[in-house]
Amino acid sequence: MKIAVIGGGSTYTPELLEGFFSLWQRLKPLKVSLYDINEEKLKIISEFLKRMIKKSNTEIEFSATLGLEEALKDADFIISQIRIGGLSARLQDESIPLKFGLLGQETTGPGGFANALRTIPVVLDIAKKIEKISPNAWLINFTNPSGIITETLSRYTKVKVLGLCNVAINLQNDLSSLLNVPMDDIFLDCFGLNHLTFTKRVFVRGKDVTEEVFKKIKEQVSRRISKKDKKIVETIKMFPNYYLQYYYFREEKIKELKKKPRRAKEVEKIEKILLKLYQDPDLNEKPKELSQRGGALYSTAAVNLISHLTGLQKGFQIINITNRGAISDLPEDSVVEMPVFIEKDRVQRCIIGKLPLEVRGTIQAVKAYEQLTIEAAVECSYRKALMALTQHPLVSSLTLAEKVLSKLIEANKKYFPKLS
Amino acid sequence: MKIAVIGGGSTYTPELLEGFFSLWQRLKPLKVSLYDINEEKLKIISEFLKRMIKKSNTEIEFSATLGLEEALKDADFIISQIRIGGLSARLQDESIPLKFGLLGQETTGPGGFANALRTIPVVLDIAKKIEKISPNAWLINFTNPSGIITETLSRYTKVKVLGLCNVAINLQNDLSSLLNVPMDDIFLDCFGLNHLTFTKRVFVRGKDVTEEVFKKIKEQVSRRISKKDKKIVETIKMFPNYYLQYYYFREEKIKELKKKPRRAKEVEKIEKILLKLYQDPDLNEKPKELSQRGGALYSTAAVNLISHLTGLQKGFQIINITNRGAISDLPEDSVVEMPVFIEKDRVQRCIIGKLPLEVRGTIQAVKAYEQLTIEAAVECSYRKALMALTQHPLVSSLTLAEKVLSKLIEANKKYFPKLS
Amino acid sequence: MKIAVIGGGSTYTPELLEGFFSLWQRLKPLKVSLYDINEEKLKIISEFLKRMIKKSNTEIEFSATLGLEEALKDADFIISQIRIGGLSARLQDESIPLKFGLLGQETTGPGGFANALRTIPVVLDIAKKIEKISPNAWLINFTNPSGIITETLSRYTKVKVLGLCNVAINLQNDLSSLLNVPMDDIFLDCFGLNHLTFTKRVFVRGKDVTEEVFKKIKEQVSRRISKKDKKIVETIKMFPNYYLQYYYFREEKIKELKKKPRRAKEVEKIEKILLKLYQDPDLNEKPKELSQRGGALYSTAAVNLISHLTGLQKGFQIINITNRGAISDLPEDSVVEMPVFIEKDRVQRCIIGKLPLEVRGTIQAVKAYEQLTIEAAVECSYRKALMALTQHPLVSSLTLAEKVLSKLIEANKKYFPKLS
Amino acid sequence: MKIAVIGGGSTYTPELLEGFFSLWQRLKPLKVSLYDINEEKLKIISEFLKRMIKKSNTEIEFSATLGLEEALKDADFIISQIRIGGLSARLQDESIPLKFGLLGQETTGPGGFANALRTIPVVLDIAKKIEKISPNAWLINFTNPSGIITETLSRYTKVKVLGLCNVAINLQNDLSSLLNVPMDDIFLDCFGLNHLTFTKRVFVRGKDVTEEVFKKIKEQVSRRISKKDKKIVETIKMFPNYYLQYYYFREEKIKELKKKPRRAKEVEKIEKILLKLYQDPDLNEKPKELSQRGGALYSTAAVNLISHLTGLQKGFQIINITNRGAISDLPEDSVVEMPVFIEKDRVQRCIIGKLPLEVRGTIQAVKAYEQLTIEAAVECSYRKALMALTQHPLVSSLTLAEKVLSKLIEANKKYFPKLS
Repeated sequence: MKIAVIGGGSTYTPELLEGFFSLWQRLKPLKVSLYDINEEKLKIISEFLKRMIKKSNTEIEFSATLGLEEALKDADFIISQIRIGGLSARLQDESIPLKFGLLGQETTGPGGFANALRTIPVVLDIAKKIEKISPNAWLINFTNPSGIITETLSRYTKVKVLGLCNVAINLQNDLSSLLNVPMDDIFLDCFGLNHLTFTKRVFVRGKDVTEEVFKKIKEQVSRRISKKDKKIVETIKMFPNYYLQYYYFREEKIKELKKKPRRAKEVEKIEKILLKLYQDPDLNEKPKELSQRGGALYSTAAVNLISHLTGLQKGFQIINITNRGAISDLPEDSVVEMPVFIEKDRVQRCIIGKLPLEVRGTIQAVKAYEQLTIEAAVECSYRKALMALTQHPLVSSLTLAEKVLSKLIEANKKYFPKLS
Repeated sequence: MKIAVIGGGSTYTPELLEGFFSLWQRLKPLKVSLYDINEEKLKIISEFLKRMIKKSNTEIEFSATLGLEEALKDADFIISQIRIGGLSARLQDESIPLKFGLLGQETTGPGGFANALRTIPVVLDIAKKIEKISPNAWLINFTNPSGIITETLSRYTKVKVLGLCNVAINLQNDLSSLLNVPMDDIFLDCFGLNHLTFTKRVFVRGKDVTEEVFKKIKEQVSRRISKKDKKIVETIKMFPNYYLQYYYFREEKIKELKKKPRRAKEVEKIEKILLKLYQDPDLNEKPKELSQRGGALYSTAAVNLISHLTGLQKGFQIINITNRGAISDLPEDSVVEMPVFIEKDRVQRCIIGKLPLEVRGTIQAVKAYEQLTIEAAVECSYRKALMALTQHPLVSSLTLAEKVLSKLIEANKKYFPKLS
Repeated sequence: MKIAVIGGGSTYTPELLEGFFSLWQRLKPLKVSLYDINEEKLKIISEFLKRMIKKSNTEIEFSATLGLEEALKDADFIISQIRIGGLSARLQDESIPLKFGLLGQETTGPGGFANALRTIPVVLDIAKKIEKISPNAWLINFTNPSGIITETLSRYTKVKVLGLCNVAINLQNDLSSLLNVPMDDIFLDCFGLNHLTFTKRVFVRGKDVTEEVFKKIKEQVSRRISKKDKKIVETIKMFPNYYLQYYYFREEKIKELKKKPRRAKEVEKIEKILLKLYQDPDLNEKPKELSQRGGALYSTAAVNLISHLTGLQKGFQIINITNRGAISDLPEDSVVEMPVFIEKDRVQRCIIGKLPLEVRGTIQAVKAYEQLTIEAAVECSYRKALMALTQHPLVSSLTLAEKVLSKLIEANKKYFPKLS
Repeated sequence: MKIAVIGGGSTYTPELLEGFFSLWQRLKPLKVSLYDINEEKLKIISEFLKRMIKKSNTEIEFSATLGLEEALKDADFIISQIRIGGLSARLQDESIPLKFGLLGQETTGPGGFANALRTIPVVLDIAKKIEKISPNAWLINFTNPSGIITETLSRYTKVKVLGLCNVAINLQNDLSSLLNVPMDDIFLDCFGLNHLTFTKRVFVRGKDVTEEVFKKIKEQVSRRISKKDKKIVETIKMFPNYYLQYYYFREEKIKELKKKPRRAKEVEKIEKILLKLYQDPDLNEKPKELSQRGGALYSTAAVNLISHLTGLQKGFQIINITNRGAISDLPEDSVVEMPVFIEKDRVQRCIIGKLPLEVRGTIQAVKAYEQLTIEAAVECSYRKALMALTQHPLVSSLTLAEKVLSKLIEANKKYFPKLS
């Protein structure tokens, strides 16, 4: 079995590798191939990874390449974790909207929109190569905005793509602590869009423990269960995705963001530190500083998905996948986030049904934004880009959409498709 | 034939009466019965109407009453044009939201929400009487917010209700001038919700003249076709409802409203003048000052609908009616605004199909707001009221929704259902 | 304006021409071009038509050609009325099924199936030429089986096709006599598939007169309203299409057909007589013998449709057209028969809704048969052909389907696509 | 935990009890209560069951009663296995249709129809008691026709009902032998209605082995895989339910049935033998003669379902349950047969999607028949009963439907609701 990692030069890759160690036990022989366009970073990461592998006593066959075709060749799984324009582009995504009193965030709102417009042309190019070189491989997409990228690939290519996000697995993890049960015993009856999911009910070994969870949350405010989330839970009677705060506490979040340094800046610092650490020829284990980088449990989610798809284990996993009627209020061909049952070949959607009225409007508006954003990028349509932003609940204004779009186009000249 | 007018004491009623004159020619004998809870206004209007009838040489049999049952008895048509709380409540609807930087308007946003919460309990009470006394009568609803009120009656009562609005007929009128063709030759391929409709195509005697209309609009900026509307037309390639400006130019509209006196104040002045004029025993015709009151062509729309429903004429009319699958992206049982074909008994919906992506999100979000508002009023649910506002594109914030809701509840103590 | 008639050598064409005379008054100048592959018949018909035109005092510009391209050139309307294999093929369609105790009929059951398989390849070829030569022309399809042929063209070509049948217009005509009102005042609330329609309600100038019609039918058994139809009306509370008898009185119909000579034989005789009459150089008017040929009011239906589509008149007409959600229990892209509103460019489907349970199963089964038959012809699939017949309510057996299919393939070697 | 068995006097009950022995290990303490209206049979079975329990060394707490309320009290699971009118009614169901050349079978066609009409009123009565006495109990329905009975209970009562059938589990068992893998490793991607299911794909531990299965079937004709089934597999490329033979080989089946004695007669004989055996005070184990009675693996299916619903195990099971959009071509509220995932409280439907065209018509026609049959019984409607039969693919004739219905009404005077 071979896993290709697109964007393998990321400082996060050591985390992924650790996940592969556990896979290796059950799937050996295992090849891992990193691909990146940044030669320098790719080299640093590769050297470090080789040391990690040596230390691990696994016999993972490792390679790194600047050639996408080489990485894709014979791949069974492809993990995509790229960031077009790097952290400097992210910095702009987080800064420009704030100038107009809009939320600046890399996956949601005008920032996420800019990220999508930079990324869609690139992933479509990559997909063409996958269609030719490894048409049967599964593409596991981490590339943000994950829902939009997964839908783009589902609608415009033949690539077998599933989108992953670490929000669901972190909630599962939190509830595991809260309820003191193993993670695998928990089932989240959750639905929505990437970064806009809602957990209606929580089950432990099939038993509905939702009321118990709500009660515990009511009593307890901790790092994970913030005051804001508590308030949301009490209002909508569902457990919200962390990102819902951007929608429900827009003004507060804008104020908060304006005060703090941009997250891109912080990540830049952490990355510098990590890259330096990784170059230490004596380091052959994941340094503890990696945990500050974000992306908790991403690696676990990927390993779980590969385990499911290879038939090592079977069960439910929350992923991004085309709707096909599971959620009746959203288009059939749109990508949604929800639990599906996976046993190797067999990926089975469940009936989710109607969206609760309390959140239906928000989800439908964001889905319209997402689909217009995709079409704007694919068709190079300025009008669609403008209406995508106008309809986004975090913009809700044609005038503001026009202003922020103009700045985003200017700042992303190198990356955006030419809109007209 | 008998027409009952609920809220007959309105200063607008003389306009309606003029419409009835034209009906009388074709439908005599005709009875008209006014009902109102304001004895004083009802008396003034009644006396004036009697003089108008005398002057008209029609033999309309006129009566006025403070008893709803009496008005409803033997009615074939019931026109509902009430305003709960009167202009002082409207003033609050227009003022309170502005304090929070939100749009204050009597049919849209938090103002329209408050209006809905005051009005729903009252129309449900009236509906109960209609169900008993005149179950076969058609209820023509002008009462605002018209879409919400029509949906409430459709979902919770057996009353045969159709909602009317003067926006569509005014657009038809404007296009009639613009294209220099009779109004009846124009067909608007329009869809959406009350005060949130879009005209996709314009036909004259079956010929698609949309491009011609767009061209004329591009060249011309007049009273009706404002700069803002021109911009919208160019962006969405559809002709917008006037109220769309509130959604697309939110900030500008808020600024504009803050500068001007509230519309409620203006209408109050006009009403005072009108009531004084109406008391002049020599006045037996509609005074020209009535035209400043707003509501242009409302009377014509009502007369058209009665003509259609009695079989005097047949054809298409744009009304508010339950969806039943006409618009596939909106719930089956929700009320939408669209053209239907009417020939007496036979009210036939057309297939509208999917909503254009450019406006789908906005329409779906407003529909979720509308349905939650109705359920909040019917179920007295504070949570639903809060989430209705939170999801409204003109609010888009739980914090703001909470603040404005708290003030609206306080200001409407006398009228709101007790939310908990 | 130009009308092309494909299959113009039919003995029925003089009837069509008479319809064109009335069109000419309102649409002149008018060209009519006949196309046929049978040179002899085309010549006889052409000569006779020229005399008719002369007599008519219209100035219709007439031509006849063996070249399809020539006929299609500049056509605004194309009328298709072809019969592949002629009456000898029809004779087989009516004979072979009877040998297996199955109904033999040229549009329904195994006979209609064979007709479809002969005809689909030919109309697809014609459609390719229309797409190239006259892409904006309307194709009015009379070619049987009309529903299947219209669906084939709708799904596999870009031709603007509408299917016509004379069943609806004849019912309208019968009810016109029964109720003593003009045909145009009657609206049939009807739905279903070609030769499998049901009229749920009858309206006269918008007034529901269904109960009155049912009462009259109960009291009266005449040529049109047979004992069988009366029984059906009483059972399903809807007015049936004549062809429903094949489904509900299968055994009786089979017995009846076995006793009588095949209809193809009769039509052959009539055609011979007509062709002889047409050759009389003194004949310049439709002979009364033409009325025995069947196809009553076909010409009127065509003229009505052309009048609607050119904007000469507007209103409802019952046609075969893609469903698009009008009937919610049938596929979106399937062709159904129902009233649509037509005003020139604007062809507007109405909401029909759910099928009544009493007939839903039969309609759905026949639609599955129709769609499989089309796919069998297009994909040359023996399996699909076999399952089409197996599912047809008039076959309902894999064994019988296999037997009859084998004979039909043998008898239609010259015409069928090669199934495998 | 308590299990109530309605129709506990059945000679099949010892088989059920054996299943309970295995449950007892994991669910003790366990109560079992038999209810029947036949005192004599109930007594014989009870005495025998007591000896079996004694022998089993389980401590199942056993009771038997003629009072339904007593049996239902505190029940967690209710198994319904009743036959209204007993074997003499079944004999008529199998005989009367044959007189009209129609298939006589106890679950399908006119025989199944009669069975439904006898049974529906009784199960609705039982359901009323369940709603009152044990509203939280799961009702596991074996009572035939199982799909119709489950849909009746789902649509007209609040009872938590799931329908079981032994066809799916027997196929799983056969494939287990064929492929030489444990039953639990096999997943059947199957869909349809009770006794009209189709298995599209077969998975072993998530791997699609459908082609392998088809190949094996092609090579092999055995008891289970008959020549007829082989033919069906080759034609529809799906694995059919055994009962499909009635639809596809109607004539052959009728001939076959006419030659053989009615199955009711055979079962009667076996039952007599069994009842005699059961009365032997030395018998304390299931006699081998029980296996001739039919109903293989029924007990296993029931034990599996109880294991799933109590959380003893989790996974997929093929059951009859309301559709809720799983199969998009069938009504939302209709009952279908398909695999669902069960983990205690959580019963999760999967997306099945569109029906394959090759079988869509047949399934839809049978579903229309089923729904009309239910409504005929509930509303006592003769017209609906008549149209149910007319639309059934095994009748397909109004005349035949009328004749057979008349005889069935006469023969079932004691049991049918009074149709009018």
